[in-house]
Amino acid sequence: MKNQKRRGRRLASRGIFVWLLAAVACLSLNLRVLAQTDPLPSWNDGPAKQAIIKFVQATTTQPSPNFIPADQRVAEFDQDGTLWVEQPLYTQVVYCLDHVPALVKAKPELATVEPFKTVLSGDRAALAKLSTRQMFDIVLATQTGMTVEHFRDDVKKWLATAKHPRWHRPYTELVYQPMLEVLSYMRANGYKTFIATGGSGSFVRVYSDQVYGIPPEQVVGTAQAITYSYDGETPILSMEPRVLLNNLGAGKIENFWAVYGDRPYAAFGNSSSDDQQMLEYVKAGSGTRLSVLVVHDDPIREYVYGPAQGLPDTKVGTLSQAMYDEAKKQHWTIISMKKDWKRVFTFDK
Amino acid sequence: MKNQKRRGRRLASRGIFVWLLAAVACLSLNLRVLAQTDPLPSWNDGPAKQAIIKFVQATTTQPSPNFIPADQRVAEFDQDGTLWVEQPLYTQVVYCLDHVPALVKAKPELATVEPFKTVLSGDRAALAKLSTRQMFDIVLATQTGMTVEHFRDDVKKWLATAKHPRWHRPYTELVYQPMLEVLSYMRANGYKTFIATGGSGSFVRVYSDQVYGIPPEQVVGTAQAITYSYDGETPILSMEPRVLLNNLGAGKIENFWAVYGDRPYAAFGNSSSDDQQMLEYVKAGSGTRLSVLVVHDDPIREYVYGPAQGLPDTKVGTLSQAMYDEAKKQHWTIISMKKDWKRVFTFDK
Repeated sequence: MKNQKRRGRRLASRGIFVWLLAAVACLSLNLRVLAQTDPLPSWNDGPAKQAIIKFVQATTTQPSPNFIPADQRVAEFDQDGTLWVEQPLYTQVVYCLDHVPALVKAKPELATVEPFKTVLSGDRAALAKLSTRQMFDIVLATQTGMTVEHFRDDVKKWLATAKHPRWHRPYTELVYQPMLEVLSYMRANGYKTFIATGGSGSFVRVYSDQVYGIPPEQVVGTAQAITYSYDGETPILSMEPRVLLNNLGAGKIENFWAVYGDRPYAAFGNSSSDDQQMLEYVKAGSGTRLSVLVVHDDPIREYVYGPAQGLPDTKVGTLSQAMYDEAKKQHWTIISMKKDWKRVFTFDK
Repeated sequence: MKNQKRRGRRLASRGIFVWLLAAVACLSLNLRVLAQTDPLPSWNDGPAKQAIIKFVQATTTQPSPNFIPADQRVAEFDQDGTLWVEQPLYTQVVYCLDHVPALVKAKPELATVEPFKTVLSGDRAALAKLSTRQMFDIVLATQTGMTVEHFRDDVKKWLATAKHPRWHRPYTELVYQPMLEVLSYMRANGYKTFIATGGSGSFVRVYSDQVYGIPPEQVVGTAQAITYSYDGETPILSMEPRVLLNNLGAGKIENFWAVYGDRPYAAFGNSSSDDQQMLEYVKAGSGTRLSVLVVHDDPIREYVYGPAQGLPDTKVGTLSQAMYDEAKKQHWTIISMKKDWKRVFTFDK
């Protein structure tokens, strides 16, 4: 009887031991499966995907000579052509063009003045030839004279109804699924993700949190001057037709330092006119840095432009052959949309 | 025997019941104690403390007609004179003055030019009479020509050794303990806390996280222009003697909208020249808004200036009688450092 009891206890404790062992095995398996879950499922295996994962692992996992403390993990992303579609026109430019008729109605003298004359003509070929300066003039002329709240509400309203001419979907759906995965993956590893856009920060902030999970204070963009005044006794802030922060070209990294005060560890861009200095400056930092170039080479699922098509270097917003060559020389990571992305949009099967 | 067993079981289950009851009572007591823990222990009970707590409760606890969704909870804080001591000179001005001798050594022609002549004279009375424009000239002349990293490192080094002439402590210890509690209390209730300073954002960002728990992207300040160039083949960013963002006066709220894009629900300031428009604009928003004015009326523990001393309205950085009267009229919350604060500094007993 005593022996039976002892044996029973031994069996019971052995049972608990086996159960514990199984539990530990299960847990470690789960952890391993978790660790092996692909953080970038919309990416094909290749040098771009590997470079991004390698960078994140090297900078966030101890022990590593390139470990970065959590409060210094910062990554900067261009928007147009890097996070979402920028063809045939920048979304914000479409917004402004849609407002030109109302503007000319209010100021009829503009009807015969360039660039408004071209806009009203509806001549797409002529429109595509407008210079950056002329685009700026259109943006400043349409986004002005109203209160800051009025502008914000109007952008919200426009985004809710406007559709892209090719996909017939809201512009906010034309974001690249693989890049959304990069944003999530980097944030899950303690990186703060910033948008650095040549467009108006006040335009992008309307949807950045909803679309990219990026809060307003992490959007750095071109900024118009804003003026404080009174409407009767009520204080108001109004949009002025004057550039306060020019976030194009070198301005993109100059202004990032002016409002944040540090060099990012990673930067993603696609344009030689607007992303080159940011990508160069990030790559020139000490330790491991990641500079990534998105190349538009997918004629079926998106567009082909830049070096893939051999467009002239002067074309705004596209990638020049010279910058492509520099990227290769400086060991930036190059993303081929065609080869590296399993799917382009969230709505793609 | 059976009865005894049953009674035993009954007693045991009653024991468990009593134990559970005690545990629940304990837990609810703990929760109540937790809820009753004073979020602002360095504050005396009074209208200022009550107004801050009432505002936070009304905007963050459901049901409330003035509930604010978590992603819209934003509060803005002036720094000098609101979060830390600004007398006898702004800390950043002291930093710049300390750099004038080296500047004049490099550029001897400045020795006979104002305002540098006055600075070199060491005449404190004359120094105190320098205009804002002259202060700006000193800041721009000393904080220039170096790379952005060099400037940041130099500020860090200076802060580690410089001491306040009255307390003989590092400037970063001269922060107001009651205001640190407000920052923590608001953040614990989902508010994002921003610094809106007339000083250089790039100066404040060096210590804002460590001292206030405010990350760099939540510091909006005056910004100098920064220029991208190359040192040999290495890209560098250098400080220019030109103002990019002027965050004084109305600029404080204009620039906040330019880089954030929304109206804060709460704002704290102390100066008529630099905080008035921010406080007015915040208070003019819909729903419950909190505009708070810190009055320096404690001659023993800190300083007396502004309406408490009847200084002239034109004195920079102080509170004019006119603004004090406006604050009363518009039902802003007024903090008397003398009456409302149990202690001023963390190191106070």
